[in-house]
Amino acid sequence: MLQEVLKMKKRIYLDYAASTPVDKKVLDTMMPYLKKEYGNPSSSHWFGQRARVAIEEAREKAANFLGCSAMEVIFTGGATEANNLAIRGVIRNTKPHIITSQIEHESMLSVAQQLEKEGKVEVTYLPVTKDGFVRPKDVENAIKEHTVLVSIQYVNSEIGSIQPIAEIGKILENHQNSLFHTDAVQAAHYLDCNVEELKVDLLTLSAHKIYGPKGVGLLYIKKGVQVKAQLVGGGQEFDMRAGTEHVAGIAGMGQALEELQSPKLPVTNIKMRHMRDKLIKGVLRRVPDSKLTGSTEKRITNNAHFRFKGVEGKDLVIVLDQKGVAVSTGSACSEKTQEASHVLLALGLNQKDALGALRVTVGKQTTLEEIEKAIQYIASAVDQLRKSRV
Amino acid sequence: MLQEVLKMKKRIYLDYAASTPVDKKVLDTMMPYLKKEYGNPSSSHWFGQRARVAIEEAREKAANFLGCSAMEVIFTGGATEANNLAIRGVIRNTKPHIITSQIEHESMLSVAQQLEKEGKVEVTYLPVTKDGFVRPKDVENAIKEHTVLVSIQYVNSEIGSIQPIAEIGKILENHQNSLFHTDAVQAAHYLDCNVEELKVDLLTLSAHKIYGPKGVGLLYIKKGVQVKAQLVGGGQEFDMRAGTEHVAGIAGMGQALEELQSPKLPVTNIKMRHMRDKLIKGVLRRVPDSKLTGSTEKRITNNAHFRFKGVEGKDLVIVLDQKGVAVSTGSACSEKTQEASHVLLALGLNQKDALGALRVTVGKQTTLEEIEKAIQYIASAVDQLRKSRV
Repeated sequence: MLQEVLKMKKRIYLDYAASTPVDKKVLDTMMPYLKKEYGNPSSSHWFGQRARVAIEEAREKAANFLGCSAMEVIFTGGATEANNLAIRGVIRNTKPHIITSQIEHESMLSVAQQLEKEGKVEVTYLPVTKDGFVRPKDVENAIKEHTVLVSIQYVNSEIGSIQPIAEIGKILENHQNSLFHTDAVQAAHYLDCNVEELKVDLLTLSAHKIYGPKGVGLLYIKKGVQVKAQLVGGGQEFDMRAGTEHVAGIAGMGQALEELQSPKLPVTNIKMRHMRDKLIKGVLRRVPDSKLTGSTEKRITNNAHFRFKGVEGKDLVIVLDQKGVAVSTGSACSEKTQEASHVLLALGLNQKDALGALRVTVGKQTTLEEIEKAIQYIASAVDQLRKSRV
Repeated sequence: MLQEVLKMKKRIYLDYAASTPVDKKVLDTMMPYLKKEYGNPSSSHWFGQRARVAIEEAREKAANFLGCSAMEVIFTGGATEANNLAIRGVIRNTKPHIITSQIEHESMLSVAQQLEKEGKVEVTYLPVTKDGFVRPKDVENAIKEHTVLVSIQYVNSEIGSIQPIAEIGKILENHQNSLFHTDAVQAAHYLDCNVEELKVDLLTLSAHKIYGPKGVGLLYIKKGVQVKAQLVGGGQEFDMRAGTEHVAGIAGMGQALEELQSPKLPVTNIKMRHMRDKLIKGVLRRVPDSKLTGSTEKRITNNAHFRFKGVEGKDLVIVLDQKGVAVSTGSACSEKTQEASHVLLALGLNQKDALGALRVTVGKQTTLEEIEKAIQYIASAVDQLRKSRV
């Protein structure tokens, strides 16, 4: 037992982009709703109203974070549901056109591809630069008369490229028929998500990417924007998402979003950036034939993404896991497939190079000691795998 | 503060059909996944696999409860999502026919009505007996060649009538094209939910109705039954429901379902029935012009449903809440509307009588003392309201 605990203590988690631990303050906010406050928020009695208040307080906190009104916040079961709602909800009967990029998350691309296959939408998948950036000019050129939606992820899940959302938003202001959606799950901890600054009509957030619980997300829907509910029933969430609310999760998400407005956050984020930079430098220095994918500048604070010649990322993940270091090849949602990442292929990498990918993402709990160990382990793991192939 | 605590202690919760407290054992099962075990179940490393195991263990527990194989269990964000998936997922492009009843829950009726309005399905809403029962013969007579789905709630959310699911299932065995779905959320704590006995192809459960957490449910999908996923993305839940899993919630739901297989459960349920019976007798004896809605026999263990002449249920809920008793007029999901319950109208009650409805549902925590107090309070509240109207 002690052995097990010691083992656990020594493990190094560097996959914060896949999921984060729940903050203590967030958990404290959730706990009453897993214990004494068990009313159904739709019930009109005292127990129900206590739960209702928790949800509405969380909605206020979310609205504060986004710079919108509370009524524009719809809590969902997660970011995937929010992304599905954003697309499916704006598709009308006539076959409309939507614009997205080749490097979107699966929860956006899969929906677009499915609807396209069913003949329900026409889709333009914008190419990106070799560092993974969507060009605003490309968005502008792709707009058609029947373009109902442009959806671009704020920060790419794999390589951390920060997209010029506000710039695209500005372009779309001149195209009243085209709604603008961004999936901000990887951005929220580090970047301004004010919806007016970004000029977005729809925005997705996830709680478990920002030290909140799993099973809850939200979709910001700008007032006046018509979105068709995909779950109907009891009329919860302003008739936009039926089903008894995940009260504890929603309360936790509200708290996680409030934490993002803490004056301490910039310091935390600078620390993370420092560690991430140390990691990148260390790995590139220690590992021969290693490369950083994407930009060094417009890159999200906690993301590092490497390619190692002659080594497959999936093997590296396994070997590193054996050494007690948790990292990934790409986004968690795509780990099951053995194929090269669609993101890396879109950057122009060939199949083989794309398979050599390793994503390492730091978090609030990461320590310098962990970074130093991780560099060592990565170097020795790459070495080990290269030798075994000879 | 002490005052507040005392007040809380004295409150009587009799709305267990709307939501239940989370059992301690269930919460204990959940807690690791809100604390140390924060990996994303799609991640292939140690942290991810710990979360993965939790989900698969919960799936096994659910499968044990349902008498099915684990691969037939799809965890969702709740029963509403499961019901939406059950209908939307079996609708194909040709305009098919579905059969349901006039007394279904909103999460079934609203979907059917929406799809019907959009011209995507043809729907038969079966009438029920004056005690709220679907007649199996009616189901048989309603079946058409293009009937793709029959959906009947196992236990009615408002009046607790237990439908002859197995009997309907038997009829549908002779109609291979028609899938059979039941929403068993109100039944699971009390009745056999073995899917083979019930002869259902699809079955919905909710965790928070069985002393589990909110924000999680499941849909049983019989092997071989084609259901189209409504949420696509990362391929979770066997490609049937994308999105990072609500790990803690799923673990909790698994435990809640395991608790339902405890040898102590029948005793607990008998106790509940005893209290419910005492409540019914007490109220009918103490309150003049009061009636029990529905059957006394094929009625779910914890449900009482009254009508009081000359008193509106919504006023009664408010007055009782002021006295510290939490009850409801109908299902929580429909409490917001001021209209008479569609269930009661389907029983043949007129608008006025239907508005006099009060649902009182007992639970595992209910005590005899609470029942006695509740009878008193209900009697005095009805009296008070009747006097105020003179």
